[in-house]
Amino acid sequence: MVDPQRVLKNLDELRTLTGDANGAQRIAWSPTWLKARAWFEEKLEGLPVKHHHDAAGNHWVTLHGDSDKALVVGSHLDSVPNGGWLDGCLGVLAALEVLQHFAEKYEGHPPITIKLVDWADEEGARFGRSLLGSAAFAGHATIEADRKRTDRDGMTLEAALAACGVDIERVGDAASEQKNLAAYLELHIEQGPILEAQGKPLGVVQGTKGVERWAITFHGQEAHSGSTPMAVRRDALAAAAKLALEIRQIAMKHPQAVATMGSVKTFPGIVTAVVGRCEATLDMRDLDAAILASMLAEARAASERFAAEERCTVEWSKIWSIEPIPFDPKLVELCREAIVETTGTVELLPSGPLHDAAEVARAGIPTVMMFVQSLNGLSHNAAEDTRCDHLELAVRAFTSLADKTAAQIQH
Amino acid sequence: MVDPQRVLKNLDELRTLTGDANGAQRIAWSPTWLKARAWFEEKLEGLPVKHHHDAAGNHWVTLHGDSDKALVVGSHLDSVPNGGWLDGCLGVLAALEVLQHFAEKYEGHPPITIKLVDWADEEGARFGRSLLGSAAFAGHATIEADRKRTDRDGMTLEAALAACGVDIERVGDAASEQKNLAAYLELHIEQGPILEAQGKPLGVVQGTKGVERWAITFHGQEAHSGSTPMAVRRDALAAAAKLALEIRQIAMKHPQAVATMGSVKTFPGIVTAVVGRCEATLDMRDLDAAILASMLAEARAASERFAAEERCTVEWSKIWSIEPIPFDPKLVELCREAIVETTGTVELLPSGPLHDAAEVARAGIPTVMMFVQSLNGLSHNAAEDTRCDHLELAVRAFTSLADKTAAQIQH
Repeated sequence: MVDPQRVLKNLDELRTLTGDANGAQRIAWSPTWLKARAWFEEKLEGLPVKHHHDAAGNHWVTLHGDSDKALVVGSHLDSVPNGGWLDGCLGVLAALEVLQHFAEKYEGHPPITIKLVDWADEEGARFGRSLLGSAAFAGHATIEADRKRTDRDGMTLEAALAACGVDIERVGDAASEQKNLAAYLELHIEQGPILEAQGKPLGVVQGTKGVERWAITFHGQEAHSGSTPMAVRRDALAAAAKLALEIRQIAMKHPQAVATMGSVKTFPGIVTAVVGRCEATLDMRDLDAAILASMLAEARAASERFAAEERCTVEWSKIWSIEPIPFDPKLVELCREAIVETTGTVELLPSGPLHDAAEVARAGIPTVMMFVQSLNGLSHNAAEDTRCDHLELAVRAFTSLADKTAAQIQH
Repeated sequence: MVDPQRVLKNLDELRTLTGDANGAQRIAWSPTWLKARAWFEEKLEGLPVKHHHDAAGNHWVTLHGDSDKALVVGSHLDSVPNGGWLDGCLGVLAALEVLQHFAEKYEGHPPITIKLVDWADEEGARFGRSLLGSAAFAGHATIEADRKRTDRDGMTLEAALAACGVDIERVGDAASEQKNLAAYLELHIEQGPILEAQGKPLGVVQGTKGVERWAITFHGQEAHSGSTPMAVRRDALAAAAKLALEIRQIAMKHPQAVATMGSVKTFPGIVTAVVGRCEATLDMRDLDAAILASMLAEARAASERFAAEERCTVEWSKIWSIEPIPFDPKLVELCREAIVETTGTVELLPSGPLHDAAEVARAGIPTVMMFVQSLNGLSHNAAEDTRCDHLELAVRAFTSLADKTAAQIQH
């Protein structure tokens, strides 16, 4: 019997154990995160499962079946500092409910193998390397770049991993866990306002949007704010301000695209000087690679036009990018069915944020995610919340999706 | 005989003595500034003058005449760190030439008294309090606020003044120097591009522009750059960007007005978040108080309109303001005459930057300034420069202005 109340009770327990007045504090590789993982291990008692940690610190729980072909369900227990009570751990605890469901339904021995995974360091909150565990699993470990990373106190990622029994040189060995995996399912809160606006409790995620992330610097001429006539200024802020407004027009041409200027820095940055240099960041996302590429090209051309208008120059420097990652069409359809059967309605939407599921999909494993509505679109802070009846529907629909997927793998 | 070459030679000597590869280092109350003042005292040797420091550290050199009514010429020897070779000291050394001219012309005893003043701490570079000496002279000392000021190393302004023999509690006593002063003349580099653009070596300054200086904060909603659709964002940066562009339109309606957004700060200021709070600064200036007030009202109304458009709110907080200070019409006319007679042409322009002359004018003493062309409008850095032939014309025209002013005082 699927028991959504058990999931809610577990979420409450975990919140009490690993949160404080400011929110969740399960930062990966921290004592509080280890405490959360130890608590989770206790929850496995009595279940007919084996469990182990892979070379990247991902935690695998296996319910062996007649076939080695495996369905994987999971998410992450780690949180950002002062995080929400649902981000990540909802998916892990719903996955635990799925495991219990299969164990009961098949009296400990299902036709296919069911695995639960708790990915290590999805958030990258402490060292700036998100999806660390799932990327290593997918064969996308970046050990050279990651070895040097440090936290605010100067501790290296390498040392933090070692303290948790993970050897950074060997994280790539986690790729061996890919063997026999036939499908990956993840339940997560939306972290956005779309389902709430549409009045839908649950949605099928089509895939994760591609991301283009750039640093853009406009160079003008620092000048005295009192003695420099308007007509002769070369104001780097003016060029950046034009771009800040233009990227919104560019994104709004496409229904699912977003474009954000999240940081602007002015130099010298004093009240009495025309801005000589302005550093801005750009983050553009869309599910369609061609649309994303055209948006980026438009923004770049616009920045050059604005620089010329203001007699400035502009430089672009790439911070990071990732292609759009569509989820498996057959699993998207099964997820749609499970949601409609459970709630009578469904929304199809892309994910703007990245998730471990994106890495799993890149590894060629059929993948889909289910989103449950977030209240006010808030996440990554203590105000993150979802209605309890929606959480219950999510657990039911997710278990139904697991049933449907297992049936498909079996046949 | 007026000797402009002597002024150039003195400027070169002072540059060598108190500058380095990065520029002038005569920061007020520093050993290098004291060295500059000691060097200047040596230059007085052989002149029939007396000199003293007033209660605010201003240095007065007096050539007594038949009448106690005095003409004052001066400027400041202090510089910003890595400053230019002309800002301030040109005016002091041209004033020295005027003193020598009167001493020679009248064999040590002119019909009226001629005074030179080297104001203390015009720049406010170290403690953030500009016009310290001239404000104290003018009766505008702000001892309560200034006592707490500290430099980067935590040294108080009070201690720095004490180390130079100035008791901060008594700086207001400098106002007694106002007695018998009939006119104040100051030669300064323009620090802007207007004279160069007009092809004029010298200009008459109509007055110093009023300044309105404000901190403006837009409050929106921090949101995830990936999961928040464009249509539901409350982007504080967008509102600020609109204002950054609008203030330029507001200023350009008036021929001499300027408006500058010199600093923009974004919060949380990360590439992956829509800006929830944006702090900007605004500096507006014009010579006409009514125009300045209308510009400020327009900017404020625009900021509220943009905040509403972006579903943000906006707060204004005053940093500082000063009214426009027009110079004496009779002296403006004498200055115009002196420049036309010397160069055949003249420009009438306001000063955007403040100067000690503004404080003297506020004290009710008839005042005018003469500007000499700056190359590329640069100042406050080592690239500050002026053509030598223009400096020579400046010394000749300024001495002529002093002659004309003395004659007017006498009659």
